[in-house]
Amino acid sequence: MLKLFYALNTCALASHIALEEANAQYEAVRLDFRANDQSKPEYLAINPKARVPALITEQGILTETPAILAYIAQTFPEARLAPLADPYAFARIQAFNSYLCSTVHVAHAHGRRGYRWADDPVAIKDMQRKVPETVGACFELIEREMFTGPWVTGGDYSICDPYLFTISGWLKGDSVDIARFPRVHDHYTRMSARAAVKKVLAVQS
Amino acid sequence: MLKLFYALNTCALASHIALEEANAQYEAVRLDFRANDQSKPEYLAINPKARVPALITEQGILTETPAILAYIAQTFPEARLAPLADPYAFARIQAFNSYLCSTVHVAHAHGRRGYRWADDPVAIKDMQRKVPETVGACFELIEREMFTGPWVTGGDYSICDPYLFTISGWLKGDSVDIARFPRVHDHYTRMSARAAVKKVLAVQS
Repeated sequence: MLKLFYALNTCALASHIALEEANAQYEAVRLDFRANDQSKPEYLAINPKARVPALITEQGILTETPAILAYIAQTFPEARLAPLADPYAFARIQAFNSYLCSTVHVAHAHGRRGYRWADDPVAIKDMQRKVPETVGACFELIEREMFTGPWVTGGDYSICDPYLFTISGWLKGDSVDIARFPRVHDHYTRMSARAAVKKVLAVQS
Repeated sequence: MLKLFYALNTCALASHIALEEANAQYEAVRLDFRANDQSKPEYLAINPKARVPALITEQGILTETPAILAYIAQTFPEARLAPLADPYAFARIQAFNSYLCSTVHVAHAHGRRGYRWADDPVAIKDMQRKVPETVGACFELIEREMFTGPWVTGGDYSICDPYLFTISGWLKGDSVDIARFPRVHDHYTRMSARAAVKKVLAVQS
């Protein structure tokens, strides 16, 4: 059975929702980041990067949200979470998720985990100060250029949707008002009402 | 015909090499970052993110290196650039490329593009100072945990190889000695000798 390692308020929420949307049989295992579970030897043996998510499959361990999401879409094709037969449409989905991973999540991370890239308290503070500007700019681009609607890539729900929902959920903590982005805001509201999302959020509480 | 937009010394090199390895018919178009080509209206119409690479296909435009690399692998299956029939093996490749994109490239970017995440000159300088440490830590993890050999994922050359080669090529500028990572170093040397790599480097000069 699949086993997903997650922690609260992390991007692992996206994979958790996708597993639920796929109607997968899986076990969700919570790490406590305040207890530094992610850096304990038993977890480093699973993911030496000391991050979540990690997904244990029958073939081995997977990490990185875009990879796990595509894996779920490919191994549960009946859930129709990605246009698997069309390499271009699939690549558009991957491009969106890659942007969330490498640009939007990274912009957000400078607020709470600036120590990854600097040591000077002045630098850490300046990074924190800039987060609303950088995260806001990312979401302006998503709202204006990337979001098709009603779902991220158009009429079909896909693995982009739980990932956008996850990162949209960080906007408040980043001091960015989601109401600035009406289509993203509407997406967040509709996502919140989905059965799979409600179920996962009840577990992750 | 495919059209790839690149600039010198950027991660677009990975997609350029992959197109060459796939024996694709394509045109490579160079942007001059010193002339700020990436922010001119004609390029923003192609990629509003003002970054490279961008790949124009018959169906539309693709961005983000991991997405473009997977697209090349899927649309040129005879080149065998990814294990397309095995979702787990494919996901391992995607996880590696996602790590390069969202962690290693990001660590590197703090050296020259710290202004993305901070404004204070003290912060920019502190980020630059930390680059050898953060990039070095990423490559220690690659060397120790991720690199299988002789190619990134084992016996088969894949879309991970030109991407790792591209980022390994930045180590010197990041003041990290590639000789600290013998397997990555050997990979870099073998990649440099490949016909496709030589051809692309001759164009990108």
